[in-house]
Amino acid sequence: MKIIVDAFGGDNAPLEILKGAVAAKNAYGCDILLCGDEEAIRACAKENALDLSGMDIETAEGAIPVEEDPRGILKKYKNCSLAVACRALAEGRGDALVSAGSTGALVVGGTFLVGRIKGVRRPAIGILMPADKTPFMLIDGGANIEVTPEAMNVFGLMGSIFMEKVQGVQNPRVGLLNIGAEPNKGTDLTRAAYEQLAENEHLNFIGNIEARDVPQSGADVVVSDGFSGNIFLKTYEGVALTLFANLKEMFYGSTKTKLAALALKGGLKDLKTKFDADAVGGAPLLGVKKPVIKAHGSSGEEAFKNAIGQAVRFAEGNVIGTIEESLPKKEQEGDDEQ
Amino acid sequence: MKIIVDAFGGDNAPLEILKGAVAAKNAYGCDILLCGDEEAIRACAKENALDLSGMDIETAEGAIPVEEDPRGILKKYKNCSLAVACRALAEGRGDALVSAGSTGALVVGGTFLVGRIKGVRRPAIGILMPADKTPFMLIDGGANIEVTPEAMNVFGLMGSIFMEKVQGVQNPRVGLLNIGAEPNKGTDLTRAAYEQLAENEHLNFIGNIEARDVPQSGADVVVSDGFSGNIFLKTYEGVALTLFANLKEMFYGSTKTKLAALALKGGLKDLKTKFDADAVGGAPLLGVKKPVIKAHGSSGEEAFKNAIGQAVRFAEGNVIGTIEESLPKKEQEGDDEQ
Repeated sequence: MKIIVDAFGGDNAPLEILKGAVAAKNAYGCDILLCGDEEAIRACAKENALDLSGMDIETAEGAIPVEEDPRGILKKYKNCSLAVACRALAEGRGDALVSAGSTGALVVGGTFLVGRIKGVRRPAIGILMPADKTPFMLIDGGANIEVTPEAMNVFGLMGSIFMEKVQGVQNPRVGLLNIGAEPNKGTDLTRAAYEQLAENEHLNFIGNIEARDVPQSGADVVVSDGFSGNIFLKTYEGVALTLFANLKEMFYGSTKTKLAALALKGGLKDLKTKFDADAVGGAPLLGVKKPVIKAHGSSGEEAFKNAIGQAVRFAEGNVIGTIEESLPKKEQEGDDEQ
Repeated sequence: MKIIVDAFGGDNAPLEILKGAVAAKNAYGCDILLCGDEEAIRACAKENALDLSGMDIETAEGAIPVEEDPRGILKKYKNCSLAVACRALAEGRGDALVSAGSTGALVVGGTFLVGRIKGVRRPAIGILMPADKTPFMLIDGGANIEVTPEAMNVFGLMGSIFMEKVQGVQNPRVGLLNIGAEPNKGTDLTRAAYEQLAENEHLNFIGNIEARDVPQSGADVVVSDGFSGNIFLKTYEGVALTLFANLKEMFYGSTKTKLAALALKGGLKDLKTKFDADAVGGAPLLGVKKPVIKAHGSSGEEAFKNAIGQAVRFAEGNVIGTIEESLPKKEQEGDDEQ
């Protein structure tokens, strides 16, 4: 098992990425192919006494900035670390790819350099999010802004297979993000997506889920178009961040509350971790031919190591083969039309 | 100033509604017209020693249940308390209306029984929501599931006028809920709405706001289509509820944490109130010819009293006159087309 690592993607590249790669090699016994400026990688490893022995390096030029047009990966930045990593994956020099770089560029690179699964028109980002009990996957998290009901049905299918094969959830419960519980609620899009999901024999579809109920719904997969999904995801993060910031302010308000905060420190830290999307893991790009994991942009050593662990399970779990077998037949037949 | 009260709308009707009406009469010196089954109102007042002297009653039959098709207010439930209240408002037997009943039925009743402002094709619900500093208005909160860019421009205008005239915010900052900050982000709808909002001379438009940044953005009005707005609103509520439930569980975990929780009790209660959408106030239905306020379904005496206070300021503030004067000219000319 060889994991391809974009060594220059993310806020803490290359140091934390290299540390995470070393930790993952030791933890999972996988081989590593690092993509990025070889000289810079060697210098960083030397300076920080990191042992990269046994890892391969495929050299690249710089990284694509997150604020750049993601399509830049195909032209202006075609030799950046992420583009080189995508081509290495496409050409079989590794079994899966992990990057903490630009999500948009990863979607474009995955779609056009690695290639789509036949029958999947739109690869989607599946975001693992914290909930009251176990994490759930929101799909699509923002890769596809305008979608069809057919695409949303495929999102549900891909999310369900990933949750089962990689996250170990049995018979994952799949819900549709909506503004009411009844089947006729929402937009024309959600109504049509509801019908398709309900008829999909590969899914344990539990119906519409109101955004308010998601944390407690017990859904393992929450299907959404990329726009609403991104609104949901970002609101979730924003409210949690604001609440924790307010709690902190309250704790430091007086000596009495400071002492109280001390007693609660461990519990609060656990709670913060529980609601921290970063801690839950990387986000798979589903619908491309080979396993691709997007690690959080702010990943440190531990988060990046965990993302590599997911990539290993992703590659081992025959997720992509199962997606191929389970796709609706007409989707596959219609693939040439696009 | 006479406020029309739907005495049978909401989870705690009629008792808490009547208590709120009495409290509001004393606090704001307004007259009250209660709509609902007169016998039941008199019996409830007697049993609870509430003094309704000086209030008028317009009798009605029952209430429209929240789970009913809202259009039922025009036919099957045409004599329910909310329908009677809407007609009383339309016919000038009061200056504003407050109901804690079905939002959908209030939108239908407001639109068809009270009537739209000429030039407003779609009345919208403006939800006052808690933020890090001062509350902001989310508009539309769910009255219009599929909208046009023109409608979203009008939402921004109506929200801005309400925040200025009723909530006392000077030169309200108006933002557009989106999945990125740049003008070209989002869907075709958000891009077109952005252009219209940016060109609207009556608005202090501050551009796109990512859902994650809303609580700290300082925006006073956040414009959205009703679907995304409802997803945003419900996610906001759901995450806050789940976090507070988890905090509570943590506090009761051990004697040590129980003591700590005691020291933090006041601060936590303040924080919970700060993030409680109910505490912020009622939601105006904007775009109809007369002032209409939707009080939260779970309103108790205090919340309902506050909603009546908003209705008084809504009627006194010439909000509707200002909306009429500020509407884009072509909107008004095009009104007959629909």
